[in-house]
Amino acid sequence: MMKTFEKIGVIGRKSIVGIEEPLTNLLNFLEKQGCDVVVEAETAALIKSASPETREKNKFAMGLDLIIVVGGDGSFLNAAHLAAPYNVPVLGVNRGTLGFLTDINPDNLGPIEDILQGQYVEEQRFMLKANVPSGNVSKEVVSALNDVVLLPGDKTRMIKFDVHINNKFGYSLRADGLIIATPTGSTAYALSGGGPILHPQVNAVVLVPMSPHTLSSRPIVVDGDSTIELVIAEDNPCVPHLSCDGQQQLEVQPGTKVTISKSSHALRLIHSTSYSYYETLRSKLDWKG
Amino acid sequence: MMKTFEKIGVIGRKSIVGIEEPLTNLLNFLEKQGCDVVVEAETAALIKSASPETREKNKFAMGLDLIIVVGGDGSFLNAAHLAAPYNVPVLGVNRGTLGFLTDINPDNLGPIEDILQGQYVEEQRFMLKANVPSGNVSKEVVSALNDVVLLPGDKTRMIKFDVHINNKFGYSLRADGLIIATPTGSTAYALSGGGPILHPQVNAVVLVPMSPHTLSSRPIVVDGDSTIELVIAEDNPCVPHLSCDGQQQLEVQPGTKVTISKSSHALRLIHSTSYSYYETLRSKLDWKG
Amino acid sequence: MMKTFEKIGVIGRKSIVGIEEPLTNLLNFLEKQGCDVVVEAETAALIKSASPETREKNKFAMGLDLIIVVGGDGSFLNAAHLAAPYNVPVLGVNRGTLGFLTDINPDNLGPIEDILQGQYVEEQRFMLKANVPSGNVSKEVVSALNDVVLLPGDKTRMIKFDVHINNKFGYSLRADGLIIATPTGSTAYALSGGGPILHPQVNAVVLVPMSPHTLSSRPIVVDGDSTIELVIAEDNPCVPHLSCDGQQQLEVQPGTKVTISKSSHALRLIHSTSYSYYETLRSKLDWKG
Amino acid sequence: MMKTFEKIGVIGRKSIVGIEEPLTNLLNFLEKQGCDVVVEAETAALIKSASPETREKNKFAMGLDLIIVVGGDGSFLNAAHLAAPYNVPVLGVNRGTLGFLTDINPDNLGPIEDILQGQYVEEQRFMLKANVPSGNVSKEVVSALNDVVLLPGDKTRMIKFDVHINNKFGYSLRADGLIIATPTGSTAYALSGGGPILHPQVNAVVLVPMSPHTLSSRPIVVDGDSTIELVIAEDNPCVPHLSCDGQQQLEVQPGTKVTISKSSHALRLIHSTSYSYYETLRSKLDWKG
Repeated sequence: MMKTFEKIGVIGRKSIVGIEEPLTNLLNFLEKQGCDVVVEAETAALIKSASPETREKNKFAMGLDLIIVVGGDGSFLNAAHLAAPYNVPVLGVNRGTLGFLTDINPDNLGPIEDILQGQYVEEQRFMLKANVPSGNVSKEVVSALNDVVLLPGDKTRMIKFDVHINNKFGYSLRADGLIIATPTGSTAYALSGGGPILHPQVNAVVLVPMSPHTLSSRPIVVDGDSTIELVIAEDNPCVPHLSCDGQQQLEVQPGTKVTISKSSHALRLIHSTSYSYYETLRSKLDWKG
Repeated sequence: MMKTFEKIGVIGRKSIVGIEEPLTNLLNFLEKQGCDVVVEAETAALIKSASPETREKNKFAMGLDLIIVVGGDGSFLNAAHLAAPYNVPVLGVNRGTLGFLTDINPDNLGPIEDILQGQYVEEQRFMLKANVPSGNVSKEVVSALNDVVLLPGDKTRMIKFDVHINNKFGYSLRADGLIIATPTGSTAYALSGGGPILHPQVNAVVLVPMSPHTLSSRPIVVDGDSTIELVIAEDNPCVPHLSCDGQQQLEVQPGTKVTISKSSHALRLIHSTSYSYYETLRSKLDWKG
Repeated sequence: MMKTFEKIGVIGRKSIVGIEEPLTNLLNFLEKQGCDVVVEAETAALIKSASPETREKNKFAMGLDLIIVVGGDGSFLNAAHLAAPYNVPVLGVNRGTLGFLTDINPDNLGPIEDILQGQYVEEQRFMLKANVPSGNVSKEVVSALNDVVLLPGDKTRMIKFDVHINNKFGYSLRADGLIIATPTGSTAYALSGGGPILHPQVNAVVLVPMSPHTLSSRPIVVDGDSTIELVIAEDNPCVPHLSCDGQQQLEVQPGTKVTISKSSHALRLIHSTSYSYYETLRSKLDWKG
Repeated sequence: MMKTFEKIGVIGRKSIVGIEEPLTNLLNFLEKQGCDVVVEAETAALIKSASPETREKNKFAMGLDLIIVVGGDGSFLNAAHLAAPYNVPVLGVNRGTLGFLTDINPDNLGPIEDILQGQYVEEQRFMLKANVPSGNVSKEVVSALNDVVLLPGDKTRMIKFDVHINNKFGYSLRADGLIIATPTGSTAYALSGGGPILHPQVNAVVLVPMSPHTLSSRPIVVDGDSTIELVIAEDNPCVPHLSCDGQQQLEVQPGTKVTISKSSHALRLIHSTSYSYYETLRSKLDWKG
């Protein structure tokens, strides 16, 4: 029978203890399904099974029909950054505990069979991009599925900066930082920081101040197509950092401006047909009612 | 010169102390501008000037080009409920202190001249409607510009209810209540209850639980076109109430279901060209940076 | 062998479904232990076992060595109000789920044997008393183990009042109300309202504003021996209520003053020797670390 | 007339722009009052007036009757650390804006005359000390008037640690950090982090988790004489830091334990007789009622 997804990329994260077993199980499962499997090179080094086709990370997603990632939400973020530029959909297998992004239980890979046959739900999750000045002229562009976070760069914690939204001055802030989260990221770091949950289908971004000096500061939700500028004060006592999905960090010099807006890339997120956003929410947040 | 707004309705609120002076000033001002002015009947009773044309509340908005309301955000809400069904735009004159909805300072009516000539900014602010079962068959429909709030009806405060969003079970809640706010209402009661600020141009609604029993409960922002159902538990210890914009209250019987969705009416909100949303926010919330 | 506690009062709450079985088990257990048992009259009506000695609620605690209450924290509060004036210690048997005040599991009454023999931990938990003006001269005094709560009396929710602490003006508040909680009550309603947890051995009281109009309002912790006065504004739009432990409610007229201070009665709370405050906290609040 | 305070130390902070003028005014004022004035050496370098007696920081407080500090709450913290070991009282002159610790307005030094004559209010403000393992055996002891803060040491922000209180396991936490604040510090960083206000006369310490992973985590208030131990997880992904009053920073190695308890030193804080704690609170937090 014709498969919807033929060429499947598999990726894990080497730093996760005990990742070999679910990875091996997944590869065996995909082999039985007759898939054409490509394993990311570092991931391949973790498994002892008959050597599959491997690929380096930088070319991993090219030409794939689907990427399956094994691990937690952190591993998923890694895979998402590889997949989005190539518009390859991503499916997450968790490590036994449901994740916000990784629905498939490693002990029950059955739903993947249906997914391969075309029985699945696909969501578009938008991403952010951040332009960070680097040197005199050029800018570095980084992207985020979850969040772009302005952080204190060292021991002096307070950052002074202005927030502009769509070229309008919004507010000045003295705070430990600011989390700018997508709906996908609203249930990650932003939630610990006091932000609201944004349903994945809301076209919005939330700005969550961290330990703001002004006590009446509040998270603010703006349209997802907004352009947000953070202007670091000239007399800022430290050199703040900008973190994207908690993975990349760039220095942001006092007096410079970071621009954050929707990325042209979006993540294609695959779920089994039994997926329920609210069920995941209730489970992950221990909601009992 | 041709005016954009010719036939102007004026309304205040009789319970506000000292409302006569700004009302009278406004009427004199509009007379000088050569406007055709209609005053709401209860408002007219407050002023001693030469008797203007008056109208009862229920027909007040009919055929008007613009309604000007004098008072606070509460007075504005009243006027908005009269204006929205007739698609008449509303402009707010405050009582000396900037309001979220009432920009014009009563001591400087100059900007109204420009507005009458067509120099203004118009925003669409969407409203909610709530269907509340009343008796066996019929339902009562009420509307809100700010918020629909589920409240404990008496001394037993905790309400047990389920929230469904777009026909999907969201979560069960035991709480003092739930605030469902539009972007316009996000800076009113919902903000005191711990909700985020929603920029007026975000098409979203926020659900803010009040004193929820489960500590990991959080405000959740959903698409503005969502249908939200509140199903009151059969064994609820009290008869909760539903309040719309803090003005109307309806009993909601245990075992019944309230449905909240976007109203077909929206408010046309008029600002002077110098209006700035963020400036109002900074001023009202004492943001100093 | 000599028992520390000889004369034992037993009380439950008739509104709890399935309370008969654990009550009957407890009575059988106490009989085997050779205790002299007195059952509160309404509780006795719930059980079919050989008729024990019964007593009306108002004289129930008199001369008892120990009261054992079966039920949830709400049932415990009831019993505490009976026990405290007579300085009788109270032990709580829960309904299968650990409570903040009810440690003993109904399926394992073994620890009660040790307690009867003198192997137990006793804590003093202080209580509050509230003086509420009633009529022209007299005052009604009510007491609380958990909290004294100022609530809106009807549909108009906002209350305007001043808070004085030890005869010093603290602050004015416009809010849905105010929770004044003991350490015991800090893990009950006050916690849902955004208050901090107070360890039971801190001599302090926390004042938690509910949905305060001023966004920079915060819970404030004052010495447990403070005298707190709430002065309801003359022009308050509603007649607020004062609730003690969520059980008693008294009207508080605009223009009057409520005085809250430490009660001369304290609760003697009995735990088994295996009791751990932090373990209860972790369990009840789902702390996973 | 005999003065209560004869030998006065004066200290400012060189990094504050425009500190010379209020410093000079204060020195002139004290000269007129006939005080015996000693100026801290770095502070003395800032002023052009006739050379006063100066002293290095490390011996500054020795034998003084009173220290007057000019600056903000940060400058005051510096001075407090010098004064507390010698039990010298401290008075704060602010820079035109009321501070939580600096009451005296630089444009009205009159109240200092009364203070010198013995008309003043003195408060004891307790301090914390932290034992941080340094190398194999020794420990470094640091102290704090406001707070001891556990912070992420670098870009990986989450810290895993256990909290023990009085030798009992309290809870495990995965968070950006933990603020342990005195009542004095409860209105500083801890308040931005979501902690409650502790009245200065409450003998308590508050533990405020920063962006905790578990959403039901809450600030917890414990007795001021508690011993708090933070045990950093062996597998912590970063080397956290411990910050005292935002001034000193020490590395805390994974697998080690920090112990925090009340210091044997306390600060003697001097106010003019017109000082009101609640007035300062209302002013600093913009409470309007």
